[in-house]
Amino acid sequence: MAEAESFVPFQGIKNDIKGRLRCYKHDWTSGFRAGFRILAPTTYIFFASAIPVITFGEQLERDTDGKITAVQTLVSTALCGVIHSIIGGQPLLILGVAEPTVIMYTFMFNFAKNRQDLGSNLFLAWTGWVCLWTGLLLFLLAILGACSFINRFTRLAGELFGILIAMLFMQEAIRGIVDEFGVPGRTNPRSAQFQPAWVFANGMFGLVLSFGLLYTALKSRKARSWRFGAEWLRGFIADYGVPVMVVVWTCVSYIPWKSVPQGIPRRLVSPNPWSPGAYQNWTVIKEMLDVPVVYIVLALVPASMIAVLYYFDHSVASQLAQQQDFNLRKPPSFHYDLLLLGFLTILCGLIGIPPSNGVIPQSPMHTKSLATLKHQLLRNKLVAAARKCIRNKATLGEVYGSMEEAYQQMQSPLIHQGPSRGLKQSQMQKGLGSVNADTLVDEAVFDVETEVENVLPVEVKEQRLSNFLQAMLVAGCVAAMPLIKRIPSSVLWGYFAYMAIESLPGNQFWERIVLLFTAPSRRFKVLEDNHAVFVETVPFKTMAMFTLFQTGYLLVCFGITWVPVAGVLFPLMIMFLVPVRQYVLPNFFKGAHLQDLDAAEYEEAPALLSFNLKPEGEVSRATSFADSGEVMDGMFTRSRGEIRRVNSVKLAGSVGGGSTGGSPAGGVELMRRVVSFQNPRVSEKVYIRSLSDYRGGGESSPRSPAGRAPLSPRFAAAGGGGGGEQRLSNLGKSV
Amino acid sequence: MAEAESFVPFQGIKNDIKGRLRCYKHDWTSGFRAGFRILAPTTYIFFASAIPVITFGEQLERDTDGKITAVQTLVSTALCGVIHSIIGGQPLLILGVAEPTVIMYTFMFNFAKNRQDLGSNLFLAWTGWVCLWTGLLLFLLAILGACSFINRFTRLAGELFGILIAMLFMQEAIRGIVDEFGVPGRTNPRSAQFQPAWVFANGMFGLVLSFGLLYTALKSRKARSWRFGAEWLRGFIADYGVPVMVVVWTCVSYIPWKSVPQGIPRRLVSPNPWSPGAYQNWTVIKEMLDVPVVYIVLALVPASMIAVLYYFDHSVASQLAQQQDFNLRKPPSFHYDLLLLGFLTILCGLIGIPPSNGVIPQSPMHTKSLATLKHQLLRNKLVAAARKCIRNKATLGEVYGSMEEAYQQMQSPLIHQGPSRGLKQSQMQKGLGSVNADTLVDEAVFDVETEVENVLPVEVKEQRLSNFLQAMLVAGCVAAMPLIKRIPSSVLWGYFAYMAIESLPGNQFWERIVLLFTAPSRRFKVLEDNHAVFVETVPFKTMAMFTLFQTGYLLVCFGITWVPVAGVLFPLMIMFLVPVRQYVLPNFFKGAHLQDLDAAEYEEAPALLSFNLKPEGEVSRATSFADSGEVMDGMFTRSRGEIRRVNSVKLAGSVGGGSTGGSPAGGVELMRRVVSFQNPRVSEKVYIRSLSDYRGGGESSPRSPAGRAPLSPRFAAAGGGGGGEQRLSNLGKSV
Repeated sequence: MAEAESFVPFQGIKNDIKGRLRCYKHDWTSGFRAGFRILAPTTYIFFASAIPVITFGEQLERDTDGKITAVQTLVSTALCGVIHSIIGGQPLLILGVAEPTVIMYTFMFNFAKNRQDLGSNLFLAWTGWVCLWTGLLLFLLAILGACSFINRFTRLAGELFGILIAMLFMQEAIRGIVDEFGVPGRTNPRSAQFQPAWVFANGMFGLVLSFGLLYTALKSRKARSWRFGAEWLRGFIADYGVPVMVVVWTCVSYIPWKSVPQGIPRRLVSPNPWSPGAYQNWTVIKEMLDVPVVYIVLALVPASMIAVLYYFDHSVASQLAQQQDFNLRKPPSFHYDLLLLGFLTILCGLIGIPPSNGVIPQSPMHTKSLATLKHQLLRNKLVAAARKCIRNKATLGEVYGSMEEAYQQMQSPLIHQGPSRGLKQSQMQKGLGSVNADTLVDEAVFDVETEVENVLPVEVKEQRLSNFLQAMLVAGCVAAMPLIKRIPSSVLWGYFAYMAIESLPGNQFWERIVLLFTAPSRRFKVLEDNHAVFVETVPFKTMAMFTLFQTGYLLVCFGITWVPVAGVLFPLMIMFLVPVRQYVLPNFFKGAHLQDLDAAEYEEAPALLSFNLKPEGEVSRATSFADSGEVMDGMFTRSRGEIRRVNSVKLAGSVGGGSTGGSPAGGVELMRRVVSFQNPRVSEKVYIRSLSDYRGGGESSPRSPAGRAPLSPRFAAAGGGGGGEQRLSNLGKSV
Repeated sequence: MAEAESFVPFQGIKNDIKGRLRCYKHDWTSGFRAGFRILAPTTYIFFASAIPVITFGEQLERDTDGKITAVQTLVSTALCGVIHSIIGGQPLLILGVAEPTVIMYTFMFNFAKNRQDLGSNLFLAWTGWVCLWTGLLLFLLAILGACSFINRFTRLAGELFGILIAMLFMQEAIRGIVDEFGVPGRTNPRSAQFQPAWVFANGMFGLVLSFGLLYTALKSRKARSWRFGAEWLRGFIADYGVPVMVVVWTCVSYIPWKSVPQGIPRRLVSPNPWSPGAYQNWTVIKEMLDVPVVYIVLALVPASMIAVLYYFDHSVASQLAQQQDFNLRKPPSFHYDLLLLGFLTILCGLIGIPPSNGVIPQSPMHTKSLATLKHQLLRNKLVAAARKCIRNKATLGEVYGSMEEAYQQMQSPLIHQGPSRGLKQSQMQKGLGSVNADTLVDEAVFDVETEVENVLPVEVKEQRLSNFLQAMLVAGCVAAMPLIKRIPSSVLWGYFAYMAIESLPGNQFWERIVLLFTAPSRRFKVLEDNHAVFVETVPFKTMAMFTLFQTGYLLVCFGITWVPVAGVLFPLMIMFLVPVRQYVLPNFFKGAHLQDLDAAEYEEAPALLSFNLKPEGEVSRATSFADSGEVMDGMFTRSRGEIRRVNSVKLAGSVGGGSTGGSPAGGVELMRRVVSFQNPRVSEKVYIRSLSDYRGGGESSPRSPAGRAPLSPRFAAAGGGGGGEQRLSNLGKSV
């Protein structure tokens, strides 16, 4: 994205429309050609999208005294989703009502309800004006090509925003659970459920339900690596476990129905869309002129904040849904989609519902599920082709040829970007390397399914159907309101906590905070796992300073959201990070360190060395033994797109024999060579220093063998030699 | 143990007394010489011993209508503990009231309370007779040297018994939690706490408390491998986390004290030992002659069952506390201790309290904590000696010499068994191998503390003081009854569940059940971890048949405990396993398979190959980087003594160069060589078959490359080559 030439007004939008129009027909035909299999990603994203939206509805219902309920949030998500899926530029992007919108609406309600000439009655009319202004600002941004600037928001801003959202989620979860122990307003305090004993019982029941949901949801996400159950079952639990758990815990909440009065536990409060009171929301447009002029002008303040938010959030979601690693073939459409978002915001405002924008993590989740779908389709085709070939007594070379041919047949004719691709050549050469190419193969020795898994590149079924269908399913939720109202509110608080916790892994800011609290003697464990580049290249103290600064900034942002009315300005703090990053931080940190700590793009530099053989060893083992879904999981779960790309370096020649069982110093020496080979910026000294850092001592610790040949054999065997050798032998193999 | 010559009556007892008398004085002096450090293992074992005993007291209180309470179980544990620690043969053995005793007492109470001429009033007097008979039977067993037969109870019996106990624990936990939702008998149903709303609230509160305790207790046990906090803090949490959690959740239960009536949540019911009603228990001996003669004779039935139980349980606990791997220097004393147990049982019976016997897992936990203590003492001494030597400019050889000397000075003069030992020669040679022995060393390169950790063998501070002190602390608990009564009963149900779950890891029967439920495509994961020999040597079907038989037997045993009165006979089922194992099972299973599935001793055959480099890699890394406590944990946590001893095989010469980066088939070939080298019984065919078993296909699966050279490079790289090579390089290094 971010073409340099798009500063001419309308230029970006024009390019986007031109690019997407060329593949518009294919967007639909490709979707229908996938057949019923398209339902898997559709339902997956539907659940991931609907449950948070219902939860936000519950939150808004409480925070706006019932002015906005789950009906409105669902309608907004469905309406914007349908329109975007049909005429939007990027069909991989999922739209929905998001947490920042909820927070802004809460601020606005708290402001409006205390004004005599506005009050809660004119609140929705006023938000209509806010949305109108927001839409106009978004038009401006789209026309001027502001999306070309989005990469000025570095990882620093994106991850700080991510953690801020997680903190707000967690705050809602805690507040919700605490409220379960109190008597809510707007209720009849004389009914049985509000006697002290039952209020206490409701709170305890709520604790059980919310922690039950949280625990089981977190566990079910990891189902793919369970040891029990068939592959399809584990895959099903991993993909649909969270909605299933919402249903399970809702059922659990009915177990003591005989012994408790109605209303224990408390459930979702929302009118049915067809009940009489629900209609008044939709005619807001009639009241918009009743809003005093001063408030119409004042609406520009929240509007500009929301515009900033949407510009940021919508673009980042689009970016993450269309990362390089997904190997997409159709062009992006940042400018045009921002324009469309402006229209959608105005539309939502005029009918009195909160607007939707591109959501994280649902958008990248959508792309990931479509990659799995494409993978399955390709695999079936290639396996069939290879089997047919083997039955006709072919050589290994011929089998690979038939697979390549079948693959090319499956390719769409619309290739807009990137060079022409094929199956993974390196993998096929590896296969050919172990056997004479003229040998006849049979299925008993040539494991077709495993081979196909290995040569298939990552590709995505790019189409509009799944997005359209999931939006229609969300619309169906509005009709299913009587069922949805059976969900206990405490289950939703658990879901809030789940979303907060799930958003943390992969966030480097979070990982650095964790590293700060890691005992010095345990920091070596970080090196054993997959880890970011900065762990190896940036001194611990620098990393700590940077993280402390970011944490301070985060706490200021969080504090601002607590300020009664001025809290509406919190998106400004995120904007303000751009100049801070560009002009202030370079005075305190070295350029190379800043680059590693805060990559401007969400892509990462090639990884250096891992101290263990996990990264490659794991993947290669997984490819042959485990389910493909698990491999995909490993590649795409990191929410903000930090996909590790471990570049295989051609070292086979220099590795050869002689490194096994040799002197331990040999391993370290080899390791240093690899480090300087892969990344000349990292000198031996840096490597040694960072290793001694993570061994527990400081730079001047007497335990650190800096610059000296390590005498203790354990040092080399455990930290250096073992890892280095094993990694090297892996590198040698994978070339 | 199990000397062949001890069938002469009294011979075993005589030998035991002679052996232990020689080191009796040293048992005490050695304990006092350790100074205040002895308090660490003392308090550790005190908590591990006291909490279950209190929980059993609560269980008995409920099951015997308050005839026996926590006061009685604590007194029994304290009394037997003090006596055993002073005049017992094996001071490492911890005595306490155990779950089987509780079950037997429950059976006896249910029998007695329905008899008109016995009733619950004469119940304790009758148990006095039962204990009398039990004691006499134990005398008989001890005198005839029955302990020499204890190894006829194979792993089959021991592990089945272990799982049975775990099932009974879990059953109690579930029953306890369910009862929290009901109104207990013997109470005033009109008080506020028994109104429906509060009963429900109590149940929900109980759920929160018990699951809270269970979850935090399970987590805290793993604190040593946490990444956060200082080493001492993590060690403290791992060792004392469970009692700390009992205190924490007790405090939590007081948080809503303002909003709930008294009695919510329900707490431990037990009289203070000084309250008037409590005395009537202790004068049971006066009533013993009031028991009708027919019941005195009938008492022989439960007495023989308890005798069988105690013979089995006491001996196995002694065995586990004195495993070969602990390198003990003082002799065991099975026969004499069984005799003493007879006396203690009679004593307990006469004062109306349930008897104590040797407990698992507390006894091996005790030995383990004393090994850690000895380790610390030795380390401090050796580090001081090495540092002094280095300051005087010594060569590496001289430093090792000074360490050896310091080690020998710390050895007690009383070596009763085994050859004279010293520091680990192999480790020192490894250190010397990497450097010229004449080079002067300094502390900056020679990491003294790490080196000392590496050369120290496992040894145990064998003394009586810690056992004596922990028993005295349990006695102190009786005085602290008003404090103990503040623990909510639901916290104890959580503790029951915790004990059940904690007892499972290391139980091969359990691991085999888990393996049965493991998806075929996931069985390879078992091979990656530490695993028992049978996983590699026994075909899956045979393993499944054996496990199903054992599970069926277990369910029959469990069913019998549900039978109202005949349930008292359940120990017979355990006894009956001896002939079943010897005469029935060999007709259905091959001898070699049986030997691997059911090792007669708790020792294991040397491990074959692990498919990953974890076992050795982990340990060596841990030794240099991690805390010594964690290493100890890894070695001793398996509760029934299944310590893996991975014998290092001298393969350095045959490994040499050429295996890294070579053809994948090379790895497999090398691996086969190791397999046949280490254990000739395992042919190549077995290895290949078991590998293909675990790859997901059956023996006849087309995916299994049995007998053929593997064509797919992934197969070798993932399953064979990678693991084989890495393992080999490890073997090479560790020689």
